[in-house]
Amino acid sequence: MFISREDISRLTIQRMVLYHSVLKLMQEEGITVCISKELGRRTGISPHLIRKDLAYFGGFGTKGVGYETDYLFRRIEEILGYDTSWNTVLVGLDMPTVVPVMCYSRLWPEAIKIVAIIDLGKKNQGMAVHNLGLTIEPIENIKDIICSRKITIGILAVPPSYAQKTANQLIRAGIKGIVNFSSFPIFAPEDIAITQVNMTSMFSQLTFDLKHVATNGSCS
Amino acid sequence: MFISREDISRLTIQRMVLYHSVLKLMQEEGITVCISKELGRRTGISPHLIRKDLAYFGGFGTKGVGYETDYLFRRIEEILGYDTSWNTVLVGLDMPTVVPVMCYSRLWPEAIKIVAIIDLGKKNQGMAVHNLGLTIEPIENIKDIICSRKITIGILAVPPSYAQKTANQLIRAGIKGIVNFSSFPIFAPEDIAITQVNMTSMFSQLTFDLKHVATNGSCS
Repeated sequence: MFISREDISRLTIQRMVLYHSVLKLMQEEGITVCISKELGRRTGISPHLIRKDLAYFGGFGTKGVGYETDYLFRRIEEILGYDTSWNTVLVGLDMPTVVPVMCYSRLWPEAIKIVAIIDLGKKNQGMAVHNLGLTIEPIENIKDIICSRKITIGILAVPPSYAQKTANQLIRAGIKGIVNFSSFPIFAPEDIAITQVNMTSMFSQLTFDLKHVATNGSCS
Repeated sequence: MFISREDISRLTIQRMVLYHSVLKLMQEEGITVCISKELGRRTGISPHLIRKDLAYFGGFGTKGVGYETDYLFRRIEEILGYDTSWNTVLVGLDMPTVVPVMCYSRLWPEAIKIVAIIDLGKKNQGMAVHNLGLTIEPIENIKDIICSRKITIGILAVPPSYAQKTANQLIRAGIKGIVNFSSFPIFAPEDIAITQVNMTSMFSQLTFDLKHVATNGSCS
């Protein structure tokens, strides 16, 4: 199945991720068949929109019967690309977002497989990251690292002022997608997939709302 | 200044966060006056839209001269609510997103001040979290904890199947805003500010794009 990037909105993908989470829970609960109404109840998305989303990718259910939970789960994994292992390089160690990788690699989905860690600075070079079974390597080796380990994704966790320069190095070395954790946006050619993750920005909507929307205290 | 939540789009807030990051870097570089063209060059946002965003909040610049960097930075901090300290409770320890808090509390903006940690399970109760100077407390004490420590924000990091139930407990106890790190959406009354953070979802757009958009290999 080939789908052009433009055909599918970001919101559709986000909803698919949600269906995936809910279906996983339903599997754990031993529910073998699910109907769009139940998916709707658990996700807050209208059953009509759920049927439309799923029909877009080929319609996996039987009218009046519903969807087979396992089958739908596997199909969504395929659609989202979770059925593939994506070799990934982590670049930069200065950002707090990288700490969980060092402590605990389950922050990312299982399909994201970290196969190299690069740091811009000299002082961490050669250091072992035991839970990943990797050693920290220099940016100078990036092209060889990406090509020899068939890496497609780079996780960018360098200080903001290095973000664009480092992204350019990754792209020149053959990377296909970048998850940018630095707080600065990066620019790339159209054929490079970019996801910007700004943790501060996620909190900002909340602090903005709390500051500017009057609320009544409830502690009395 | 009172601004209704409906007046300001999420995208405006996200752009304000970006201006904030860029202005911080400009301050560090010793740039005392900045023009919208330079802000535009660094953020990728059109200077026209930047002027429009800033004018919306009151117009901080002088025509033909630009904005005073320090002043604009401080005004944006005020607008985003970063000038206030937000007492926050962290609820749940099961999610990998919580690990950085235990290791390294700088994952959140400085304005977010963690003053309590609650776990649903029994086994971690009373355990000290040294870098935060806190001990883990039980959910049963939630109302007292929220009221006595003037807590407005809850960070929800419980397993997905506990997310809604725990959110309800926080809301009943008087919380005003929730940052939900569990992969399930939560529902709340309109006067409660909610931000959903789904790390898996951020990677999914990328793996979707990489899977469905043809790319040419560049290793040769």
